[in-house]
Amino acid sequence: MTEFGGYRDRVAQIDLGEGDVSYRGIDDEDAKKYIGARGLGVKYVFEKGPEVDPDGPENRLAFMTGPLTGTQAVMSGRIALVTKSPLTGTVTDSHHGGWSGARLKWAGLDGILLDGESDEPVYLVVEDGDVEVRDASHVWGKGVHETIDTLGEEVEGTVGRNVSVMAIGQGGENGVRYACVVNEDDRASGRGGTGCVMGNKNVKAVVVKSGTNMPAPADPETFQEGHQQSMQVIQESDVTAPNEGGLSQYGTNVLMNITEEMDGLPTKNGKYTSTRSYEDAEGVDIDAERVSGENVRENILVDEPTCHSCPVACKKEVEVQTMHKGEEMNVRMESYEYESAFALGPNSGHTERDDIALMIDRCNDVGVDTIEVGNMMAMAMEMSEQGKLDDYGDLEWGDSETMVDLITEIATRETELGDLLAKGTERVADEVGAHDNKLSVKGQTIPAYDPRCMKGMGIAYATSNRGACHLRGYTPAAEILGIPEKVDPYEWEGKGELTATFQDLHAISDSFDICKFNAFAEGIEEYVLQYNGITGRDVSEDDLFAAGERVYNLERYYNNLAGLDGEDDTLPNRFLDGHPDAVPGQGASEGELCELEEMKAEYYETRGWVDGVVPDEKLDELDIDVGPGTGVSAGSGAAPADD
Amino acid sequence: MTEFGGYRDRVAQIDLGEGDVSYRGIDDEDAKKYIGARGLGVKYVFEKGPEVDPDGPENRLAFMTGPLTGTQAVMSGRIALVTKSPLTGTVTDSHHGGWSGARLKWAGLDGILLDGESDEPVYLVVEDGDVEVRDASHVWGKGVHETIDTLGEEVEGTVGRNVSVMAIGQGGENGVRYACVVNEDDRASGRGGTGCVMGNKNVKAVVVKSGTNMPAPADPETFQEGHQQSMQVIQESDVTAPNEGGLSQYGTNVLMNITEEMDGLPTKNGKYTSTRSYEDAEGVDIDAERVSGENVRENILVDEPTCHSCPVACKKEVEVQTMHKGEEMNVRMESYEYESAFALGPNSGHTERDDIALMIDRCNDVGVDTIEVGNMMAMAMEMSEQGKLDDYGDLEWGDSETMVDLITEIATRETELGDLLAKGTERVADEVGAHDNKLSVKGQTIPAYDPRCMKGMGIAYATSNRGACHLRGYTPAAEILGIPEKVDPYEWEGKGELTATFQDLHAISDSFDICKFNAFAEGIEEYVLQYNGITGRDVSEDDLFAAGERVYNLERYYNNLAGLDGEDDTLPNRFLDGHPDAVPGQGASEGELCELEEMKAEYYETRGWVDGVVPDEKLDELDIDVGPGTGVSAGSGAAPADD
Repeated sequence: MTEFGGYRDRVAQIDLGEGDVSYRGIDDEDAKKYIGARGLGVKYVFEKGPEVDPDGPENRLAFMTGPLTGTQAVMSGRIALVTKSPLTGTVTDSHHGGWSGARLKWAGLDGILLDGESDEPVYLVVEDGDVEVRDASHVWGKGVHETIDTLGEEVEGTVGRNVSVMAIGQGGENGVRYACVVNEDDRASGRGGTGCVMGNKNVKAVVVKSGTNMPAPADPETFQEGHQQSMQVIQESDVTAPNEGGLSQYGTNVLMNITEEMDGLPTKNGKYTSTRSYEDAEGVDIDAERVSGENVRENILVDEPTCHSCPVACKKEVEVQTMHKGEEMNVRMESYEYESAFALGPNSGHTERDDIALMIDRCNDVGVDTIEVGNMMAMAMEMSEQGKLDDYGDLEWGDSETMVDLITEIATRETELGDLLAKGTERVADEVGAHDNKLSVKGQTIPAYDPRCMKGMGIAYATSNRGACHLRGYTPAAEILGIPEKVDPYEWEGKGELTATFQDLHAISDSFDICKFNAFAEGIEEYVLQYNGITGRDVSEDDLFAAGERVYNLERYYNNLAGLDGEDDTLPNRFLDGHPDAVPGQGASEGELCELEEMKAEYYETRGWVDGVVPDEKLDELDIDVGPGTGVSAGSGAAPADD
Repeated sequence: MTEFGGYRDRVAQIDLGEGDVSYRGIDDEDAKKYIGARGLGVKYVFEKGPEVDPDGPENRLAFMTGPLTGTQAVMSGRIALVTKSPLTGTVTDSHHGGWSGARLKWAGLDGILLDGESDEPVYLVVEDGDVEVRDASHVWGKGVHETIDTLGEEVEGTVGRNVSVMAIGQGGENGVRYACVVNEDDRASGRGGTGCVMGNKNVKAVVVKSGTNMPAPADPETFQEGHQQSMQVIQESDVTAPNEGGLSQYGTNVLMNITEEMDGLPTKNGKYTSTRSYEDAEGVDIDAERVSGENVRENILVDEPTCHSCPVACKKEVEVQTMHKGEEMNVRMESYEYESAFALGPNSGHTERDDIALMIDRCNDVGVDTIEVGNMMAMAMEMSEQGKLDDYGDLEWGDSETMVDLITEIATRETELGDLLAKGTERVADEVGAHDNKLSVKGQTIPAYDPRCMKGMGIAYATSNRGACHLRGYTPAAEILGIPEKVDPYEWEGKGELTATFQDLHAISDSFDICKFNAFAEGIEEYVLQYNGITGRDVSEDDLFAAGERVYNLERYYNNLAGLDGEDDTLPNRFLDGHPDAVPGQGASEGELCELEEMKAEYYETRGWVDGVVPDEKLDELDIDVGPGTGVSAGSGAAPADD
């Protein structure tokens, strides 16, 4: 039994080829070093070797909770899916909210490791600490929503209450490289293609029956102090305050009007920095306000459900009746998110609010990442405009009706265009010769913050271990919201250091695993109290920061061993200061590009990395003892041995 | 081991005469029937027989937590002190907030029963499930604050963190009949003289060292649903919403301006229904606004601490510098409560804000109930005005400077006047012949809601099992705040039924034990979810309401066996419609009195009682199987056998 509170000390390990289920405990040293969820998940994926083929049976898919999961810590219902990404070739972790993480813990497990591949479609049932593998042939080929209904009914006789179903749709079944895993209808582990790996393994779903094993804090006094303090700061924050704060009122989509106003909203595949600039330049009828959180709340909001132990309720459930190809469509879904709206809307050249709802719902049903598929279609529109897609058929800017159907075509890969786009921006660029059209870093496309406006996002996208990502180092907290203090978004200096700090902080919360939105209010002080409270340990702020840094370095080290280095820490050409294909920002971001190289130098210095590679000294310093070392010395400045 | 979640199944029972400590479990049937805290406490006090002398060693003093205590249920830090009251001769329960209840549970105990009397002053230390009796001679005679500092330091090496000290001051030591037990400097089990009983037993303090035994819910799914729902309704309530609601902004004292405006604030020993009416009638300079929550917040607020697991933070910590008899006094304390302000201020004929802070702090240090001592002094002022106190010395209306010192004199009983007033209004009235001056019911004085304005409070005061009390059936929720729906405060009809419903609902929350302030937002639905979640039981709303009714009837039955019946369900003469000494209300309550008899009839009918007595049929119906029965039949209408 581990000495740590917050754990069940039981991780299921499933050999899908053999259909064997075994169980392992959590090593105390691992728990100390890598905390849980994201950190432990990366450690477990590392065990299979960073050189594995992400598409092959030797790739591992980990479902991991952390020490705070399923406790009453605020926003603690989450779970991390960790694997080697078939989209980026990096290690990736992608989390989702709802209740599945909490329920897995209550059911008596800390995590599930999927190894090998099943010959036939299967699904897993977790109940009372055990995992059972069942035949899934009757739901193979079905969408996520039908799968969840069918399996929820089958296992628990109900849907939603007491049971979580994490399922893939047609996207994961058909090897779409950005297929996601969807939980409870609309919560997705969206990024990096975890659903693709699950599909490769012929696993349709993981069904978790809730149980009675709620972890009690080892030190209630400290835990409660941390809980109370976190509730307090959440209540006092203009962003998170329940019923009052922007996130609570409008969900993530509170950002739409803000970034539009700042000229920080990538539009028309990142050609423009706002819909206003697009409209001014090309005379099209487009306006981000039509798809903003405010507009959604005013017109189509029907409910505001929450995840486990969350007072904020950022989920904005909407209902729309809209015409699609002459047919009336009625859709109700709970995730009109900012990122989805950006990628499927402005960045694809339109602001048809209700069509976006239809598209998000479609994405959740076929199981593909809304950001990736939206940006993929935006890239395709641009390529089409330039005649690069002539062999695959036309795709007009902002043709939202066609987009709805194209999402399904991508997931099923039934059309040539769908099959092509299922491969992701990087491979499409390779195949068709369109590298200037892609908005991706390490194969993963950017989210909804323009790095010509928020320079911190530029370095964060470039250095994110899982490809372009806002959630690995959320600098807009400082650049837009002034948390912990306001910094000038257009200033590049200091952003390397800021990004590293945010990255380490988020590595902690992702390893706990609590929602990133806590970071608008909570900080290291609340993290330490809650972590010490639940585990019974007595770590300092420095200790915990070091653990966050260790997790971040472990991922980077994995990537180095997988063949990535500083060359891969880059940005799409159109954002790059000094690049011949650069497209400067407009409006409030007039003339702006992203000073990546300057920031990279600062960032690497902060990190103690050598051209994007973790030197052996850093591995020693952080006591990372998996793998052979990168062979790079901090003094040498040499390229990594395996590069 | 009990089958119930939320319990440690361990109650310490201390024979103070022998210095023996033993432990008992909690009977499952008792837990089902009486829930916990208040309900179980009454059951345990009942074991000693309702005829015991409250001043004698055979009286039991129970410190009881409930199934929700110390969990993360909102406002669940409370503990009930239950005993036979030396003030009222009834069974009484008096709760306090802070962290002592939670800490007792975390230390591995559900409760402590004090029996007998120690020969020498002692204090108890609770640590890791055990109770140790230690010598307290070095703190005997000390005030509460010094005692808490000394014992906290002695036991834990610190004050506040990880340790709760529940102590009596000089009031409890010297047999003041309304002496209280104070926890963590400023949280008091104020009413009914629990501190007097503790003093009689020569117990100076109970020190609880926190532990690691936080109860986990037996059914996390249901518990979390209840928790989430309760957080939601608390956040949505205009009263409780953190940082927004009236209670959160101004504390309990949000009511001062409201009742003043309604002419529902008993003033000058209840002669007037507002300070405005007093000023108009007698030309004095008095204004409730000066002591209102708004005024306090604006001028002297320094902090807003919370109790365990509370998002509301109704505590309003203040700091005042004020002159007292030529000496500068600097006081910081965290309980500028509405009830204290009423009794020590307007009802005593003044609105000196800072002097009230001084008085409250003094009360908390010497350990006397602020409501009782304030009203006692108000009664004395009226008696003095009428020449009835000539043998004891003068006391002028509103002489706040003298009041400060008189509080200490009462606690020490060093002066004749102090010694007299220490006996409580009923005994003073008996001794001096002043029954028309007292504002008490069953020996306990009224709190700050005038029953000429809020008729529901009239029937609630009259029928409260522990003497006049607003917290046994808080009808102002409906009469002022419109919760669950607004009712006309001046209308008597329906108030008997309303009061019975509130009484049963509060008996549930007091038995949980969670703060009454939840009731501004939560209702039976949230109670059932949280109760079922923590215990793993599956009770219905009706089941739980029945348990609340059972607790209320058990108390009434105790009182019946102790000799009380419908005659004791009365009100001070000046409020009584039809009484020759009645004083009608003024201003907005012009001409109003309280229609007690009409409401009593309705109330008894709702209750199924016979002239205030629980008939044997009702005991059977509620399955109350302690004691011999009252010998009263529902059909007979006869007086109880022992009356």
